[in-house]
Amino acid sequence: MTRRGRARGGKAKPEKLFSSPAYRNTRNTFALCEQFSADEVAALHEAALTLLEEQGIRVLLPEARDLYASFGAKVTDDEMVFIGRDIIEQTIETAPGNFTFEARNPARSLRIDRQTIHFGPGAGCPNVTDLERGRRPGTMRDFEETIKLQHAFDVCALLGPSAEAQDIPVHLRHLHTSAAYCTLSDKIPFYYSRGTAQAQDCFAITRLAHGIDEAQFDEKICCFTVINTNSPRQIDKPMAQGLIDFACANQVSVVTPFCLAGAMAPVTIAGALTLSHAEALAGIALAQIARPGAPMVYGVFSSNVDLKSGAPVFGTPEHMRANFGGGQLARHIGLPWRSASGTAANSADAQGAAQTAMGLWGTVHAGANLVFHAAGWLEGGLTFGYEKYITDLDMLHTICLAMQPVKADADEIGLDNIASVAPGGHFFDAPQTMERYRDAFYDALLWDSANVGQWEDAGRPTAEQRATAIWKNILENFEEPPIEQDRREAIADFVARREAEGGAAIMD
Amino acid sequence: MTRRGRARGGKAKPEKLFSSPAYRNTRNTFALCEQFSADEVAALHEAALTLLEEQGIRVLLPEARDLYASFGAKVTDDEMVFIGRDIIEQTIETAPGNFTFEARNPARSLRIDRQTIHFGPGAGCPNVTDLERGRRPGTMRDFEETIKLQHAFDVCALLGPSAEAQDIPVHLRHLHTSAAYCTLSDKIPFYYSRGTAQAQDCFAITRLAHGIDEAQFDEKICCFTVINTNSPRQIDKPMAQGLIDFACANQVSVVTPFCLAGAMAPVTIAGALTLSHAEALAGIALAQIARPGAPMVYGVFSSNVDLKSGAPVFGTPEHMRANFGGGQLARHIGLPWRSASGTAANSADAQGAAQTAMGLWGTVHAGANLVFHAAGWLEGGLTFGYEKYITDLDMLHTICLAMQPVKADADEIGLDNIASVAPGGHFFDAPQTMERYRDAFYDALLWDSANVGQWEDAGRPTAEQRATAIWKNILENFEEPPIEQDRREAIADFVARREAEGGAAIMD
Repeated sequence: MTRRGRARGGKAKPEKLFSSPAYRNTRNTFALCEQFSADEVAALHEAALTLLEEQGIRVLLPEARDLYASFGAKVTDDEMVFIGRDIIEQTIETAPGNFTFEARNPARSLRIDRQTIHFGPGAGCPNVTDLERGRRPGTMRDFEETIKLQHAFDVCALLGPSAEAQDIPVHLRHLHTSAAYCTLSDKIPFYYSRGTAQAQDCFAITRLAHGIDEAQFDEKICCFTVINTNSPRQIDKPMAQGLIDFACANQVSVVTPFCLAGAMAPVTIAGALTLSHAEALAGIALAQIARPGAPMVYGVFSSNVDLKSGAPVFGTPEHMRANFGGGQLARHIGLPWRSASGTAANSADAQGAAQTAMGLWGTVHAGANLVFHAAGWLEGGLTFGYEKYITDLDMLHTICLAMQPVKADADEIGLDNIASVAPGGHFFDAPQTMERYRDAFYDALLWDSANVGQWEDAGRPTAEQRATAIWKNILENFEEPPIEQDRREAIADFVARREAEGGAAIMD
Repeated sequence: MTRRGRARGGKAKPEKLFSSPAYRNTRNTFALCEQFSADEVAALHEAALTLLEEQGIRVLLPEARDLYASFGAKVTDDEMVFIGRDIIEQTIETAPGNFTFEARNPARSLRIDRQTIHFGPGAGCPNVTDLERGRRPGTMRDFEETIKLQHAFDVCALLGPSAEAQDIPVHLRHLHTSAAYCTLSDKIPFYYSRGTAQAQDCFAITRLAHGIDEAQFDEKICCFTVINTNSPRQIDKPMAQGLIDFACANQVSVVTPFCLAGAMAPVTIAGALTLSHAEALAGIALAQIARPGAPMVYGVFSSNVDLKSGAPVFGTPEHMRANFGGGQLARHIGLPWRSASGTAANSADAQGAAQTAMGLWGTVHAGANLVFHAAGWLEGGLTFGYEKYITDLDMLHTICLAMQPVKADADEIGLDNIASVAPGGHFFDAPQTMERYRDAFYDALLWDSANVGQWEDAGRPTAEQRATAIWKNILENFEEPPIEQDRREAIADFVARREAEGGAAIMD
């Protein structure tokens, strides 16, 4: 066996190698795992409807309770809302089964339907870590750096707050993060739902980036929020307000109960999915009542906790099974859906890679259309790892490339080519090889085929250690995507003005 | 989010936790990826038949050429054999579509059919490595240790030579390794095909372990060999002899061309699969001509090389796609089939885990029935890693558990249980949790949910570093499976006698 591997050491590749149509709007051609029978899926759906109708859900925002009541739900004094199955059925009906996220760069627009798969970065992390600077609370600098890392790879289709910019007060933070999303990248941004005032600021910045007015914004789906219910059976004020605000603006709510089996959800897969499904349906109903036809994504993020420690774990058999079942429920109601990978590991080691891989495996074969936390998530989401992000990308590329159609015609088979090599020979310089070698195989970002001698000479670097040079190279050579100068200035002016006005308090 | 994780540090769990029916004779309930259309699969099969008929395959063993000729194949003076499609069709027909590997402990017997999936260890490695003793050429001690590690986990269903015992001369090595397989474990052993004399010794030791005579052995399928053709289009003497010897003994040949695209095989998936398929069919034909009805496993191990270095790589998109296509070809001919995972990484780091995971993913959704190199393979097979073996096992457990049937009946859903928890509450002590928490979730071998503080206190151990204590614990506490004293003595006597007689030279 020829072992002519060379040590890549710290050599990082330019990002352009990782820009490919294969990584954009990828059609999931993998087979979907159907864990439950059709009857069982119907039973889970029915149980969720019964739960909403008979046990109800607590909704802390008065305006939201009023909206439910206006549609016929029973509301009681203890903030409980009892949502009849007819309401759920009607609101599922008005939610669109597909839509297009329009980015300010059309090449970054995303078709959201039940066939495509899009990956998003590890997000919502209060801390960040890298091998050079260590683990630390996230800052605006980290936020900007992680947006650059997201922007650099086509396979990271959506933007997310990988780092929480904790050095900026919360009443101003959304202004700076929104401006960073809209200038450092031209992909689809995520905005937190922290009250109407903040949402309106985020929308305004988005409009400035797109160069559109309010009427045009109302026709152009170009940003999203994630709604995490307060499982079990509760929707808090900012989440309810977010559902209303994003729906009314014709922007996307990704309604994702975070139902960890054994903690905020039952210990069984079927029980956890029933609760998750009920909460997602309640959220979708609220948005659709606020504005019928508003774009929505159904979400399932159900893994389990380690029952000995109470800590959430990911990539487990239970996580995979919850995904398979969640996908079936999504198809049952006919909406595009979001899931998530992730790891409980503290570093970008073999556990981190294995758990993220198993998590991805579950989401992909469950047919998830949006997969968040697909790269960079550590410690169950408490920390975003720069090296972890890099180590995860080769897996995402591999998945997307393996989903591309393969032909088996006479030219691909190449019988003459096979016959041209003598028994016991090799194909290194066979005609077909010479013709195709440049693009035949995936040329990895981090994965290395250095032989052991070269690896030892390089100081036995782990993948995590080799990843450092790659993210540094990306940050050092980062080029902002083009944006019209007047738009850039308008965004800066808006941020300055709103900052001078005192920003926007977050909703409690 | 509660983070009550505890550092497990070096604490290893007893092996019994990893003995479960879920890990034995697992039925693959995952959906299979069909990459090619039925017409394309037929075209690949036809191309392979044309290749064998018109271009032929070089067979270096005269006895094998005579067998092919006796069945109507054209043989020419340059050792080429041209196998007509009628011969292939007839011999596929006589190969059984399923069989049972009978272990000396019936609990370790394996049903080999097109629904079950069985994992085997990383095997055939000249070197071993661990964090305490470093990388070194394999010895008999390493061979024995790795058999113990294989024996300790139900999910490792088949035995294999993870370490090559290079300190024992090759004419004696098979005696000692066979004795080790048969006394340190009661699972199904693998024997190299290195000539008839060695095979007969291995068979004799197997009979002694089972306490059976030659006639009984002829009825009991209880060991196997792997036949790697010398791609492209060549079968060397020991491989041809192995096919004949194992078939005549009614034991199993796993016929696996190692067709690395771009090196020993065409650069295209379709081309590499055509070549691989042709060679496997030629091997199956030889065995079936030698003894119609002999148990066989069709093999596909096609990944690609890094075309810049010539080094083999695994877990790539091309590896996944070759698996998907390979599974379709196996189903086309109706035989159980074997594939393989693996990694080109030099250590049990994130690259190693990711590539092994992607490789497993491809094999599992291709419907492979035997998956070798599923744990422990490093450097593309040049080295078996003790820590790598441990880091891979949680993935194998996860796959098997995620394949178990899940119910969604009223009891599993537990509406009353859900209703018993107030909105915003938790399920830690809900009735269903209390009833089921012991077995509800996978309790991992190595995967840790320690929080970052505990992890830092423990010195920031990587998964690889934590794995050391686990394999050491297994070796320190290893208990041999019971074997009748007379059988043990008979094996020892046999080894001593054959050693005194000079062992058995390997076939060139």
